[in-house]
Amino acid sequence: MHPHVRQVHEQAVEWIGDSGMCASDREKAWVVATHSADFFGRFAPVADDERLLAAALWVYWGFAFDDARCDSGPLSSRPAQFNALAGQVQRACETGTATPDDRYAGALQDIMRRFRSFAPPTQVIRFVHAHRAWLSGVAWQIGNQAVGRMPGLDEFLVMRLLAGGGFPTFALLELATGAEVPDREMHRPAVQALTEMAVMVASLDNDRHSLHKELAKGQADQNIYTVLMAERDLPLQEAVHQANALRDRILWRFLQLHDQVRPTAGADLATYLQGLRYGLRGNNEWGMRVPRYLSQGHWPDDMDDALLTYADEPSDTRPGPVEGAPGVAWWWHADLA
Amino acid sequence: MHPHVRQVHEQAVEWIGDSGMCASDREKAWVVATHSADFFGRFAPVADDERLLAAALWVYWGFAFDDARCDSGPLSSRPAQFNALAGQVQRACETGTATPDDRYAGALQDIMRRFRSFAPPTQVIRFVHAHRAWLSGVAWQIGNQAVGRMPGLDEFLVMRLLAGGGFPTFALLELATGAEVPDREMHRPAVQALTEMAVMVASLDNDRHSLHKELAKGQADQNIYTVLMAERDLPLQEAVHQANALRDRILWRFLQLHDQVRPTAGADLATYLQGLRYGLRGNNEWGMRVPRYLSQGHWPDDMDDALLTYADEPSDTRPGPVEGAPGVAWWWHADLA
Repeated sequence: MHPHVRQVHEQAVEWIGDSGMCASDREKAWVVATHSADFFGRFAPVADDERLLAAALWVYWGFAFDDARCDSGPLSSRPAQFNALAGQVQRACETGTATPDDRYAGALQDIMRRFRSFAPPTQVIRFVHAHRAWLSGVAWQIGNQAVGRMPGLDEFLVMRLLAGGGFPTFALLELATGAEVPDREMHRPAVQALTEMAVMVASLDNDRHSLHKELAKGQADQNIYTVLMAERDLPLQEAVHQANALRDRILWRFLQLHDQVRPTAGADLATYLQGLRYGLRGNNEWGMRVPRYLSQGHWPDDMDDALLTYADEPSDTRPGPVEGAPGVAWWWHADLA
Repeated sequence: MHPHVRQVHEQAVEWIGDSGMCASDREKAWVVATHSADFFGRFAPVADDERLLAAALWVYWGFAFDDARCDSGPLSSRPAQFNALAGQVQRACETGTATPDDRYAGALQDIMRRFRSFAPPTQVIRFVHAHRAWLSGVAWQIGNQAVGRMPGLDEFLVMRLLAGGGFPTFALLELATGAEVPDREMHRPAVQALTEMAVMVASLDNDRHSLHKELAKGQADQNIYTVLMAERDLPLQEAVHQANALRDRILWRFLQLHDQVRPTAGADLATYLQGLRYGLRGNNEWGMRVPRYLSQGHWPDDMDDALLTYADEPSDTRPGPVEGAPGVAWWWHADLA
């Protein structure tokens, strides 16, 4: 955990209030309660404070935008309107001169100005590309929702890879740590596979964190459980079991490939790969605690971490590729490392 | 013009027949008639034949996909369905293991295998990112079409920048020529601005090439003329005049910035920048002739080029930024070069 996370959170709270992106105190309270500084402070424990703040601001922003404009807002089943908004928000991400009339766009432009002030164009552009990938996934999800289409497992995994926001979140690693991974290393297929696997595991973990909330809403939203229940005609408990197994197999492959790649990595790539690992763990520490923050309205104390429990071993270590998921089968190619 | 363009076209015709992407002989004839080898042979006159073929195949593919799935196909006003298809096609662009059930996806995977066989991952990934940007723009356009929404000039320019397909087309330059522009040069804001301006000019030129066809269809499609007519309450003739002026101002800025950047460019960046220039000219040579190929059903002879006429000077050389288009105003930032 980053040592200054509490100060960074306080600065972020001030920024959220000043940003103009929240329409009400209730919306602001909700964004603050995501504890995104706590979240990203676990991904980048060694970041400069200024860089951690900027990265955390994007996470707060992403949660806010997601709630207001994606998952559950008025556009959540209006793909035509969302496509246009996403295009304009993405342009705001790319250039400070754009003036889209959405209250989230200006806040995003402020965050991007911060990134550009301390990071080279290559790292900023990687984030911009990841940002577009995220919005394309959300558009896909919203389209499915609009026409009541439950995707199969293969389609869901590819869509979730994008829509979960993992790509921009992990693209924050270079911005936060100052690592500048050379192209020839970042674009190695093995490194791309590691990034995709980290995104996938984190996204499936988030489906797990949201399971009770989603069930309580009683909606047939697209998540790994509803998808497996529909595709394999399973009861919920068995879908949870199979989703855990699928997730564990991906993490198992991630760890195996990581250990092959890491010894050959330059210093900046090593920082990035370590960030993926911190992120996988941090996402769970945050995800298993943040609901309690929300319900109890207090800042967690250090003891809370000790209350988290993990399985002693993976529930499934069969080598892949995972059946019925050709869209991600390349993660198991033997020639990656 | 590439010296072997005719042989490459013949190889492409064979590939199109074998690819399985065309549902009928009529569709195949239409794709062949785009003369995409002629098109891209003008962008990359010095490419290896094998590389030119692969690049040209993508252009044929892009036209075919655009006709069947984007502009005028059954999905042209169904954004939910298009978003899902675009997500799956994009995944096919990224990985050969994906198995989407669309006849265009397999053909795209074959083209991508060719790219990977001769180009480093960085150049392939740049193309992949450009491909996603294109599809996001098409999704935006289809969404507008679905709800009968005519965008204003600012929104249109940002959307057209993406939807016109110029980003993947110009990303083919590195793949075709073998240039490997280092990140620090490719991501210079000035180089990004030059790429965007080249894409914009080519896209506006394509609007001009399609003007008569579009008018004949009698539809209120989104193009620079319908947008200007609506936003500025103009008759068509004046909209054409103002669109020309706007396009000329962007090309003027492109030339000015190019001449500032070119002397400092490394060899590979110089090849890329020259490709942008070849492409701007080649797109017009192709665009002003291809309708005649289509109507006369013959291969053009070399004399045809002599029949093309250009204006002696730009219709508008006022320095920018162009009024009412903040989304692209950054192209005129004084500190770019």
